[in-house]
Amino acid sequence: MSRVAGALWRSLPAWQVYGANTGVGKTVLSTILCKVSSRFHPERKVWFLKPVSTGPLEDADDGRHLNRYARDVNSKCLYQFNQPVSPHLAARRPSDTDILDSISQQLGTWAKEGPGFAVVETAGGVLSPGPNGSLQADLYRPLRFPVVLVADPRLGGISSTIAAYESLSIRGYDISAVTVFTDAYYKNHEYLEDFFGEKGIRVFGIPFPPARDEHSVSKDEKSMQAFYEDVINHPNIGNLLAALSTKHERRIGELGTMAARANDVIWYPFTQHQLVSPSNISVIDSAYGDCFQTFTNKPADGDTTNNEVLQFSFDGSASWWTQGLGHGNPDLSLSAAYAAGRYGHVMLPGGIHEPALSLAEDLIDLLENPRLKRVFYSDNGSTGMEIALKMGLRVSCDRYGWDASQEEVGILGLSGSYHGDTIGTMDCSEPSTYNKRVEWYRGRGYWFKFPTVKMCKGQWVVEVPEELQEHLFDNKTFSSLGSVFNLEHRKESDAAYLYRDYIKSTLQELVQRDSRKFGALIIEPLILGAGGMIFADPLFQHTLVQVVRENPQLFSSRDDLPPPSPATSWSGLPVIFDEVFTGLYRLGRRTSASFLDVHPDISVHAKLLTGGLLPLSTTLASEDIFNTFLSPQKTDALLHGHSYTAHAVGCQVALTSLKKMLHMEKSGYWNSFVDDWTSANALLKKATATTTSDPVESENPVVWSSWSHGLVRDLSYAESVEGVFALGSVLSISFRDESGGGYTSAAASGLQSKLAQGSPGFNVHSRVLGNVLYLMASMTSKPDELRRIEQMVRSALLL
Amino acid sequence: MSRVAGALWRSLPAWQVYGANTGVGKTVLSTILCKVSSRFHPERKVWFLKPVSTGPLEDADDGRHLNRYARDVNSKCLYQFNQPVSPHLAARRPSDTDILDSISQQLGTWAKEGPGFAVVETAGGVLSPGPNGSLQADLYRPLRFPVVLVADPRLGGISSTIAAYESLSIRGYDISAVTVFTDAYYKNHEYLEDFFGEKGIRVFGIPFPPARDEHSVSKDEKSMQAFYEDVINHPNIGNLLAALSTKHERRIGELGTMAARANDVIWYPFTQHQLVSPSNISVIDSAYGDCFQTFTNKPADGDTTNNEVLQFSFDGSASWWTQGLGHGNPDLSLSAAYAAGRYGHVMLPGGIHEPALSLAEDLIDLLENPRLKRVFYSDNGSTGMEIALKMGLRVSCDRYGWDASQEEVGILGLSGSYHGDTIGTMDCSEPSTYNKRVEWYRGRGYWFKFPTVKMCKGQWVVEVPEELQEHLFDNKTFSSLGSVFNLEHRKESDAAYLYRDYIKSTLQELVQRDSRKFGALIIEPLILGAGGMIFADPLFQHTLVQVVRENPQLFSSRDDLPPPSPATSWSGLPVIFDEVFTGLYRLGRRTSASFLDVHPDISVHAKLLTGGLLPLSTTLASEDIFNTFLSPQKTDALLHGHSYTAHAVGCQVALTSLKKMLHMEKSGYWNSFVDDWTSANALLKKATATTTSDPVESENPVVWSSWSHGLVRDLSYAESVEGVFALGSVLSISFRDESGGGYTSAAASGLQSKLAQGSPGFNVHSRVLGNVLYLMASMTSKPDELRRIEQMVRSALLL
Repeated sequence: MSRVAGALWRSLPAWQVYGANTGVGKTVLSTILCKVSSRFHPERKVWFLKPVSTGPLEDADDGRHLNRYARDVNSKCLYQFNQPVSPHLAARRPSDTDILDSISQQLGTWAKEGPGFAVVETAGGVLSPGPNGSLQADLYRPLRFPVVLVADPRLGGISSTIAAYESLSIRGYDISAVTVFTDAYYKNHEYLEDFFGEKGIRVFGIPFPPARDEHSVSKDEKSMQAFYEDVINHPNIGNLLAALSTKHERRIGELGTMAARANDVIWYPFTQHQLVSPSNISVIDSAYGDCFQTFTNKPADGDTTNNEVLQFSFDGSASWWTQGLGHGNPDLSLSAAYAAGRYGHVMLPGGIHEPALSLAEDLIDLLENPRLKRVFYSDNGSTGMEIALKMGLRVSCDRYGWDASQEEVGILGLSGSYHGDTIGTMDCSEPSTYNKRVEWYRGRGYWFKFPTVKMCKGQWVVEVPEELQEHLFDNKTFSSLGSVFNLEHRKESDAAYLYRDYIKSTLQELVQRDSRKFGALIIEPLILGAGGMIFADPLFQHTLVQVVRENPQLFSSRDDLPPPSPATSWSGLPVIFDEVFTGLYRLGRRTSASFLDVHPDISVHAKLLTGGLLPLSTTLASEDIFNTFLSPQKTDALLHGHSYTAHAVGCQVALTSLKKMLHMEKSGYWNSFVDDWTSANALLKKATATTTSDPVESENPVVWSSWSHGLVRDLSYAESVEGVFALGSVLSISFRDESGGGYTSAAASGLQSKLAQGSPGFNVHSRVLGNVLYLMASMTSKPDELRRIEQMVRSALLL
Repeated sequence: MSRVAGALWRSLPAWQVYGANTGVGKTVLSTILCKVSSRFHPERKVWFLKPVSTGPLEDADDGRHLNRYARDVNSKCLYQFNQPVSPHLAARRPSDTDILDSISQQLGTWAKEGPGFAVVETAGGVLSPGPNGSLQADLYRPLRFPVVLVADPRLGGISSTIAAYESLSIRGYDISAVTVFTDAYYKNHEYLEDFFGEKGIRVFGIPFPPARDEHSVSKDEKSMQAFYEDVINHPNIGNLLAALSTKHERRIGELGTMAARANDVIWYPFTQHQLVSPSNISVIDSAYGDCFQTFTNKPADGDTTNNEVLQFSFDGSASWWTQGLGHGNPDLSLSAAYAAGRYGHVMLPGGIHEPALSLAEDLIDLLENPRLKRVFYSDNGSTGMEIALKMGLRVSCDRYGWDASQEEVGILGLSGSYHGDTIGTMDCSEPSTYNKRVEWYRGRGYWFKFPTVKMCKGQWVVEVPEELQEHLFDNKTFSSLGSVFNLEHRKESDAAYLYRDYIKSTLQELVQRDSRKFGALIIEPLILGAGGMIFADPLFQHTLVQVVRENPQLFSSRDDLPPPSPATSWSGLPVIFDEVFTGLYRLGRRTSASFLDVHPDISVHAKLLTGGLLPLSTTLASEDIFNTFLSPQKTDALLHGHSYTAHAVGCQVALTSLKKMLHMEKSGYWNSFVDDWTSANALLKKATATTTSDPVESENPVVWSSWSHGLVRDLSYAESVEGVFALGSVLSISFRDESGGGYTSAAASGLQSKLAQGSPGFNVHSRVLGNVLYLMASMTSKPDELRRIEQMVRSALLL
């Protein structure tokens, strides 16, 4: 995918002319536009660009036509095919990226030549395939030119014009104007005026050009010439030009005021507004793939005649960890619209609809966890975790005979965990910067400190917090990330026994000495996200789950407890995995549980669930947990539910997203990433085999990241870097922080600023958590594109 | 809008043939389909229907063509226009409802004639206007026939075919097959096979029919005849027929198994699964307007040859109170797709995008509350209320110097309130059936009992709970609902003074005697929804807010408090209105606050915000509340935010929805409802003037419901009914319940069953809350349609 800036230049209003169908007069309209601009704005240069042209039968002579009838226009065709066929059938084809880059460069060059006016003509209809088969409106989407749509004046033309408009709309195009050659018989223009008028789009009727005189070229030319002379005086043509100019000015004006307006009315999440000013609000004009198109006030390269209004910004937080299939993905857009058209939203309780049912079935299959049999829908990760919590507390209180309204039943978790912003889920985490200022927050539980994984100076290290070292061990180094994940081997190691003893004795103290009660074990598997991108030793998490399951007597002295851990029933405590962030391929696999070699009883998924388009969350649970809520009493049910539970649009989009990601998995979409990490791991293992404490490399767990192993290694040697890791689409860099970390860190925000500054026309939007700067790719990001970002990181840190 | 059942008959597979454009061979394809069905299934009758035909130039001779080449087919044209123009230009036009009814009846009649096969041909392209100007794909949408799309084989045909497919998709149609006459030069079929193949839609290439012989009719007929004889032996034709048959069987099969499958995998919200079985799960095939299309197993009228698979069910809970602009609204669908195409989801903090900004600005304007200046986005009413709560607690603790981590700061509310399912918002309500089984629930606050409003035996009554009568007064009757709302007058009444004294002395006791602390006043204005559709006396709620604002000394003895109640600053306690359910026209007005003549400091809106399509919530707050969070410390910020905060799709849909509802308000869309209530009020006032305690009718507050005043009056006389009210789109019937109410009531569920049974082919889906059955219309529901539902209610209760 090309990384071009959106097509918007301050002094070069530019329009892409699309036709509702082939043969509707795009070239004539383009010629008119060029001529009238020359007439009314002689101070502007007029430019005409035909990116792809396909021979005489269609409109290969567009350029010639234009040159003949609008002599003062500078016209250019970038790619000319001689066969009168759809360009995707032609030979010697430029790539889509080439085409986009050429257009962008060409217009950029023209924009430097002073005030101008440009028309970019398309070929065929809006969805005619381009040279590589991508539909034209998809091909040009990264540029998102404003569109002039030439309607079809013929019989059936109302249908094709509106359908073309809809196809452009679902790809996020803005239609600046519709033009229609007025036909007195079919009167399409009358209908279209009403139709588009309601949508705030003006329709400009234009007299029909003369019929082609097939017998005399000169007569033909003469009558055409006369037509043009005449038509540019038609009031609608002047109005059209004026309307386009106004749109152009207004769009740039809006982009210029949006930050200040947002600063006046928006209350931003997780934002200290005293530190916000319009200058640090980035105005997003649109987004595509893994990039935003953002408004830029500064000339890109110091050249004041260069007046690009938009730059492209890599969406380096994957839009708060949600992005999977790219912004502006047309398949997701169409899926959303299909469900909206078929259902709108229909209430779930008492009924069922196909997207909710299929998604539940697909998820149960996809997660490959034999415990999970039931799907409870909600709207976001936080509500999904509230539901999980309600499930967990109920079943343990029920089994152990606790009355939680009278006695405090807490949860077991990990230090630095984070499960959401609603107060109930906040209570599942220990006091932190996030929750300590929330008046009703009451942390309820116990949170284990635990060993973490990172790369330091070229080696993978399991690092044990100082206060645990007396119970456990000092830091351990590993030959590769794969060997850290080799649980088959590590389960039998000393570390495993030490972990087990430590966990067991801690629990004994808590329950027996301190009389604490626990209702659930809640874990973010592998990576604790909001807590600061903390990579937990998988062996520790594995062991924690095993100890809890194998020792129900730790939690209750009742002697009528079911035997520990039958294959699919909970034992000890219900185990809840918060995979809201880590699940559904974010770490490269369907679940992050699969790295830990344990199956939770309850698993919560959100964010990537809809591919990064819409809020939707699912809490999956085992049948025995579900059964605990069965009773003749309605009030024993799980009394939770939001109005838009399992909204059809979200479910349909999720269905499409999961299907696409599964296809990517199966078709090896990420193979080059896997190869990079596999070969790097092998090399590293060889180089360090004699110095590490665990030389056994697992063949089994494939561990990879879309961020290159080379970058991770080089970062790990950087002086300012304390540790680094990458997994799946996540890269996390912990900086040494003299100030002691906390909510912000100078080193991390230093890198953030440099990335935000970027290079001309391109920057990287990133997020910082304390002393950690992380970058997160989309699941569709391509290697060469990510390497370009990595280069920016390297430059910023002088690697 | 017509109330037709979805077009699906067990023994009559029926297909609607749409063309990618005009002149692409719909009639030829229809003829082929009819002929091949006759050939392979001689036991089936073959039917051809042309609903609307428009003269010789287009395809008025479709029927004749069919009769000529497929003699054993029964063909019919419902509406024939002789002008060769788009039907919307013709004279003497049937209404859209007529057309739908005729099609439904015609097919229904044919379905009774035993096994068959039907083809319904459209006119022109997919979006060609029908006789009344509605786009054809919109016009026929309530029937939602499965579609055979005839592709355009010409140059540009790839574009028009895919655009047609997209326009059908965004209206929720399923495309069963695409056919294309194969052209060796343009090879559209090859491209289309790949394109649709990826979407799981099969493309069937069919040999081109012979070119028309313009000189000899008989030659022309002969070659056409030969073509048909030949083509039906083409393997693709047999495959097409088989594929269609399979689709038909599979669709009915799926509908038949969905309830059982849902019963296996879905964990329903607010549902006691022990009471659920597949037989009481209603399978929703699709939805349109204010109706679902649900699967029905029983023949509609006892006639076993009648085999309709779908019936239409009035969505009587407005899909859990969300529905505003109708299911399957094509404008909302396109808005959703546009934002998905332009942005996908882009993260909010640090940036701004147009839909989020415009929606915030529009909402602030629309709500007409001079206090509200800031918009905080979240995903649903519950999270919106968690945010409001965090805002409220912070500002009061800050002003009064309370450390809420050390001392309990509760909220003030009303008995029977309900604010959401997350634990923090549950804590804002007193113990109830909803929350008492939630282990971490701890009600934190005090909840006032209060007088309620209902109609009993033809009179509007303000009913005072028995335990309050000693402090207040006995029940009061009113001449009309308008006079209950005449706060201008009632503020000066004895009742107002009694309310004030009672509220003030209660607060004094709580704070001074019991040392309680309160951080916010939280109210559902007018109607307490989930608590049982309780209609609070607006004067009581008005007075409660005023007392809290005018008496800050009630809550704190500090002597440095700001003076009470400057126009836009909070005083006493921050006042939070939970308008999640009641706001944005649900009760007929933009806000329900406007009925109370007070402006809250914080107002939460969700549900109708997106017109009933998607989860989205907004918490609006005053500038002084916002300012309290300003500080140099990041951690003093409001630390709340969900990943999909202000998702572009939801914001864009909300923008469209609010614009549409505002237009409905301004254009008098609900005038006939207003007239009904205004005239009924006037009559009632006249009739009861001498017997009521408050004879003053307000001219000002227009109070209306889409449910007729006559129904409310008649219900109020029914023996089983304890009280009834209607406001905006809400009708609430409280039944006398010998068992004492609670979560269910026999009388209410009795009516629910009768409505669910319905009449042949039509029923009403409703929800019950304890002893209350409510019905809720969409904001687009039409009077005559609602009167039909009312008739069903009347019959069920023998009114």
